[in-house]
Amino acid sequence: MILNSVELDRADPLALKRELFDLPDGVIYLDGNSLGVLPKRVNQRLQHVVAREWGNSLIKGWNTHDWIGLPQRVGAKIAKLIGAPADSVIAADSTSLNLLKALTAALALQPDRKVILSDKGNFPTDLYMAQGVISTLGEGLELVLVEPEEIAGAMSEEVAVLMLTEVDYRTGRLHDMANLTKRAHDLGIITIWDLAHSAGALPVDVTAAKADFAIGCGYKYLNGGPGATAFIYVRPDHVQAFRPSLSGWMGHAAPFAFDLSYEPAAGIDRMLVGTPSILGLSALDTALDVWDGVDLQQVREKSMQLGDIFIEEVERRCREYGLVLISPRNGEERGSQVSFRCPDGYAVMQALIHHGVIGDFRAPDIIRFGFTPLYLRYEDISKAVDVLEKVLREELWRAPEFQTKAKVT
Amino acid sequence: MILNSVELDRADPLALKRELFDLPDGVIYLDGNSLGVLPKRVNQRLQHVVAREWGNSLIKGWNTHDWIGLPQRVGAKIAKLIGAPADSVIAADSTSLNLLKALTAALALQPDRKVILSDKGNFPTDLYMAQGVISTLGEGLELVLVEPEEIAGAMSEEVAVLMLTEVDYRTGRLHDMANLTKRAHDLGIITIWDLAHSAGALPVDVTAAKADFAIGCGYKYLNGGPGATAFIYVRPDHVQAFRPSLSGWMGHAAPFAFDLSYEPAAGIDRMLVGTPSILGLSALDTALDVWDGVDLQQVREKSMQLGDIFIEEVERRCREYGLVLISPRNGEERGSQVSFRCPDGYAVMQALIHHGVIGDFRAPDIIRFGFTPLYLRYEDISKAVDVLEKVLREELWRAPEFQTKAKVT
Repeated sequence: MILNSVELDRADPLALKRELFDLPDGVIYLDGNSLGVLPKRVNQRLQHVVAREWGNSLIKGWNTHDWIGLPQRVGAKIAKLIGAPADSVIAADSTSLNLLKALTAALALQPDRKVILSDKGNFPTDLYMAQGVISTLGEGLELVLVEPEEIAGAMSEEVAVLMLTEVDYRTGRLHDMANLTKRAHDLGIITIWDLAHSAGALPVDVTAAKADFAIGCGYKYLNGGPGATAFIYVRPDHVQAFRPSLSGWMGHAAPFAFDLSYEPAAGIDRMLVGTPSILGLSALDTALDVWDGVDLQQVREKSMQLGDIFIEEVERRCREYGLVLISPRNGEERGSQVSFRCPDGYAVMQALIHHGVIGDFRAPDIIRFGFTPLYLRYEDISKAVDVLEKVLREELWRAPEFQTKAKVT
Repeated sequence: MILNSVELDRADPLALKRELFDLPDGVIYLDGNSLGVLPKRVNQRLQHVVAREWGNSLIKGWNTHDWIGLPQRVGAKIAKLIGAPADSVIAADSTSLNLLKALTAALALQPDRKVILSDKGNFPTDLYMAQGVISTLGEGLELVLVEPEEIAGAMSEEVAVLMLTEVDYRTGRLHDMANLTKRAHDLGIITIWDLAHSAGALPVDVTAAKADFAIGCGYKYLNGGPGATAFIYVRPDHVQAFRPSLSGWMGHAAPFAFDLSYEPAAGIDRMLVGTPSILGLSALDTALDVWDGVDLQQVREKSMQLGDIFIEEVERRCREYGLVLISPRNGEERGSQVSFRCPDGYAVMQALIHHGVIGDFRAPDIIRFGFTPLYLRYEDISKAVDVLEKVLREELWRAPEFQTKAKVT
């Protein structure tokens, strides 16, 4: 296997991209689906933004460094990764807040229907935000949650909005965006796709899929840093058709006229709310440059192969310790991660991290490994399984320091 | 006047604080009410957060560097500046979004009343957000806007929420928070105070005033950088009494249990929504350290004196050019800024900026000057008026390059 990895790395068309990242020594990082690795040029950019732009230009920076245009410029870079027109995506706020913007807009486009349909594999914050909308709006709205595989069957003409995360954060199961969106549209349902685990992980084409709204995260596969600015896509033929519920001054048609009445900006700008975070956006802006010249189809192929090898190795070497694959075995049905149910999973993951293999744990008993083809090597995969096997065989996870749950898991 | 300034600077108990800021050479910065100056230690902190915390600790940073506790730690520092208990303030999102959180909570506490009362001097984004709530919620809600001086008389038992910005962004006129809040409470009205131009500008005591909610901005007098994280205060006896409308996972009682149903966190944490911006919060966290040992009463005294001197000098030397004071002449009734109506104000401000005196312009004809006692000297004030007088006397503002409006004014 070692030899094979070396050969695969040698033939990897993405191998050189690893040089763009600042990977800590002695660590195999299989958690880029939770927090992406630091792209090398980000620190320099931030120093420049702080010392030169903010420090020297002060308030003039909004014009001279076009800070005011950053949400759009960053949005245009993300648009390329998800098959969207450049001016249909904007970077702003958090994923949760963008979900809320999309959901209230979608409900406004469907005022006579009362059901928001989602699945139990959706990331909880999306469900919480929907519950907040329902509790605030009332009006007989209802959130219906079914199992992921029941989504197609649960669609009906009663459903206003289908709200799904394309890749399940726990299992990595990939929804069929194009087909589910088509079925939704046949029934007059508006779709919202959360691309948190898709953008930068696999090819996405919101235009071909005719997705109505999409949102996503800046700090996973886009490597924008902890709590990075998120993004929202609105299909161009929808964007003029609703009044944003979060109607802040940055989404106003003329923010600096200081009118007393809100008038939405013409296009995607209306999805802005308050003053954008220039530090956060600048970091994400530079982080996105690692995608220059990247063929997302190559990313996908490597991602599936990394996952396939990982599954094969873990099952061959670790099955006796009770690990059960919960991700789709077929790479085509999977995002860029692999998860196993694992007895004492929390402690096992702590031990793994202690021994230099960073994945993460998701309650109640899931150990999760993400594959980021821009900075992972095939040889990392074999080495990671070596460590996992050792942790299990030698029961290293039984050490007391691995038993206490941290605040963030 | 020059001699007098030198004496005043010599006697200034805050004079040494200027050393904590990175002021560009040759600039007199009278716009800290729009974007605060860079505190020297912020760049170092950000480099550390990026290279060491994010770069080296990666996902572990949430625990090992307690990123997860940053919104609370930063909130506690802001709490000191506004007279709030440490655990009643949290730093998150933008001012606009925090206004929305406060407004929906306040309306939930007053379900039988339909009027949101504010004044025409409120910062537009607060009004826009309220208009968004009304347009989304319907239910007969109404935003009533009166002149600032008519607020007390406009309160009645029909009013659900009184929503005011303490310091008027254009005129600097200061509302009497304690008395207006008392009158509001006598009529059963919930109050929301926007402290965007108050926190760090003058002593604020939300506890003594019994303010119900307060929000504010991180990038003005708190010097957190362009688009800095904002803050929200909820009076401790209210915080358990409502379900947040923006119910994201970071405000959940157990975010990492990944339950399907939202359950609000016990205290101020419920005002969090999505994943907090660690870059933005870290910058603000370090920026707030400049307040260590600062007596806000001294800040207030210097601020009023800087404003008084500025008004006196401008009126003495520039009145013939049509400048009309629109700020209260009495420093006690003013925040930390002074504004004049000024014919061709936009071009005059551009010329001033070009000649090293940075203030700002607010439509239609207002030139605005902010006073930030931590990094301004008395001598700066006299020098600024020298430049203003020269710009007006020599009509330097007539140069063509000062006529074209920039995107951000």
